Amino acid sequence: MSRTATSSDVKAYSVTATGETPKRVTGEARGVRMVLDAPEASGGDDEGLLPVEAVLGALAGCLNSVGHHVATQRGLDVERIDATVEADLDVRRFRDGTDEERAGFRSVRATVTVETDASDEEVTAWLEDVRERNPVIDNLVAPTPVELAVEVKRD
Amino acid sequence: MSRTATSSDVKAYSVTATGETPKRVTGEARGVRMVLDAPEASGGDDEGLLPVEAVLGALAGCLNSVGHHVATQRGLDVERIDATVEADLDVRRFRDGTDEERAGFRSVRATVTVETDASDEEVTAWLEDVRERNPVIDNLVAPTPVELAVEVKRD
Repeated sequence: MSRTATSSDVKAYSVTATGETPKRVTGEARGVRMVLDAPEASGGDDEGLLPVEAVLGALAGCLNSVGHHVATQRGLDVERIDATVEADLDVRRFRDGTDEERAGFRSVRATVTVETDASDEEVTAWLEDVRERNPVIDNLVAPTPVELAVEVKRD
Repeated sequence: MSRTATSSDVKAYSVTATGETPKRVTGEARGVRMVLDAPEASGGDDEGLLPVEAVLGALAGCLNSVGHHVATQRGLDVERIDATVEADLDVRRFRDGTDEERAGFRSVRATVTVETDASDEEVTAWLEDVRERNPVIDNLVAPTPVELAVEVKRD
């Protein structure tokens, strides 16, 4: 049976980002900061991950936090969760403005390494739950509308 | 006319993530690190953005780098690009394991503030191009397959 969302169910997230160079951005949320940048070979100062790498890192972070949360709810003893996340991107749309390929990752592959005494069956059920309840995975696999607005500052 | 992708068109990205606590992950790519965490009220140490906030930050970073790249290609003088990115998330699927709502953001709203002398028409065309060529936006608005595998470490 469905229940209407209450105010405590729906949380708002916000990041304010300052473009410091054409490659470097500092994002801030709740007074906490994240720096994104590009390698020197791509015109950056190598002071942070690339934005596309940050998406892969976010997925890994979400696998860790959802993984521990679900393990607790299932009564599984999970000591530690590491992850490797990989993806390929055809850069032609971004780089050249062609429309032959999508702009983003074609697919993403994540491998979770979990330290646990749980059985293989328990781990399989846990992983399925982790996948289904993972916000970052859901935002990748299912369409998420993005509204984009612009404000212009002139001297 | 379509052209087959060459090896220089397709780039591979990879992040290796270490789960340091149930909330904190350090992601690493090319020797560069990103720390994700949770607020103290959510059981973290407040040492980094939440994974879902990192997705919003990645979107802002991508708006900056794609924005400058597209401006250069269009011959527009863009001095600076800031952004605010917001989103709402119904936490019930993550928190409680219900299946009433999707796990991730329902929608994302980004506002770009651009310092430029370009005309309104030029800015509008620029923004449309930035949207279409933005990898992070594309991975949100269009479905992206995520493969998930697990390796189990036992004592």
